Amino acid sequence: MNPTVQTLLQHRSIRKFTEQPVDSETIETILKCACNGSTMGNMQLFSIIVTTDKKMMEKTAALHFNQPIATNAPLMLTFCADLHRFNRYCQFRNASTDSYDNLQAYQWATTDALIAAQNACVAAESLGLGLCWLGTIVYQVDKFIEILSLPKNVMPVACIALGYPDENPELTDKLPVEALVHHNVYQDYSEFDINKYYKEKENHPNTINILKENELDNLAQVFTQRRYVKKDNEFFSQVLKKTLVDQHFLDE
Amino acid sequence: MNPTVQTLLQHRSIRKFTEQPVDSETIETILKCACNGSTMGNMQLFSIIVTTDKKMMEKTAALHFNQPIATNAPLMLTFCADLHRFNRYCQFRNASTDSYDNLQAYQWATTDALIAAQNACVAAESLGLGLCWLGTIVYQVDKFIEILSLPKNVMPVACIALGYPDENPELTDKLPVEALVHHNVYQDYSEFDINKYYKEKENHPNTINILKENELDNLAQVFTQRRYVKKDNEFFSQVLKKTLVDQHFLDE
Repeated sequence: MNPTVQTLLQHRSIRKFTEQPVDSETIETILKCACNGSTMGNMQLFSIIVTTDKKMMEKTAALHFNQPIATNAPLMLTFCADLHRFNRYCQFRNASTDSYDNLQAYQWATTDALIAAQNACVAAESLGLGLCWLGTIVYQVDKFIEILSLPKNVMPVACIALGYPDENPELTDKLPVEALVHHNVYQDYSEFDINKYYKEKENHPNTINILKENELDNLAQVFTQRRYVKKDNEFFSQVLKKTLVDQHFLDE
Repeated sequence: MNPTVQTLLQHRSIRKFTEQPVDSETIETILKCACNGSTMGNMQLFSIIVTTDKKMMEKTAALHFNQPIATNAPLMLTFCADLHRFNRYCQFRNASTDSYDNLQAYQWATTDALIAAQNACVAAESLGLGLCWLGTIVYQVDKFIEILSLPKNVMPVACIALGYPDENPELTDKLPVEALVHHNVYQDYSEFDINKYYKEKENHPNTINILKENELDNLAQVFTQRRYVKKDNEFFSQVLKKTLVDQHFLDE
């Protein structure tokens, strides 16, 4: 196992960090790695907002539902799908500036931004940092746009809290690899398959605890009735859709 | 520089592969790394389609605009945003099966799939493979869905051709890191900034050649008038939007 594979297989989310700040040389290396990934037509359709200022973190804390890591991490990186910079380039080069006001460009830029984000994560972990993605960045996107001063044609798609680990949690329980992999074409999942693939996860001590806390029968119900409830998902989908319209990525 | 950072900074797309197949142990390691990334609520909302069968590659070749790597690569990995498996799990556990029929869930699953895809790429490169992303996967998504037999609530978001490199191209010209990075809030780009950040790229020998071939004044025009033209982008945006509706991720 080479050191990179080892880093990738050792990944787990870290939610407690020491006081140690991340020095600027380390940040520079992480950003360089982030900016060297694959990108659509080499257009580099993303931007990275680096936050080390606690006041800035406090401004977005409520939007992250006050998760402690939203303010306790010494470093936060927000990755944005960004067609604005490219449109600006077009503007100053006598080229059309509305070719990328559409969903296709959003999909490209989201891809570029997430490749960059994951490169940053891998680089950071190889340098001894721990991290946790804040999925809340895609909930109230409109409000993040306001606080981060994002212009039209820019959308936040990933937010990662980083720092030196002050905990050493076990690896997370995952589905077996074969549950996620198909050969040549997608093979649908029968009830037998689902039972087989979820068995280990359902018998995991974490799961048993979660079910007890939630007084529910199984994990599926924990997700649909507590964690990610239809009503909320639909509400935030409307926010996302409206924001895509506002940011010039989608027609009404 | 540790070996992981080195791998990340050495990345460039490889479009020519040797005849050497990728052995199953190597594929297994790549898939394991892909499946161990961060994921929304540990739901693992993605699937990976592994293709080594040339006949399958030939079926999608035209959809990749007959790029040689779409059929010449010994290995192709297609990463899909996948809520179907989770919905199936809900179905067999007496939980609601329509909580994730929305755009928010698509955004989550796209993120999961792209984290997995980039992990796969980093693992592969650390093992000596080369690769190239096929952006064409998000063009005619409806047709890929048909060929790959993807059920509702599944969308292809990334397709990567992999193999052992049979070329050794230079690193690609990229914008300087500071062009992509903002501190605390987004700083808009003035004409001065754009000129400064694009200077090196515009003076790069590759760019000079591209402009000569295309008989155009600058790169911005190459993109807007030749490579990614508004009319095409809008057409494929409509395909993407309609497919999101068909796959139960977007209301009409």
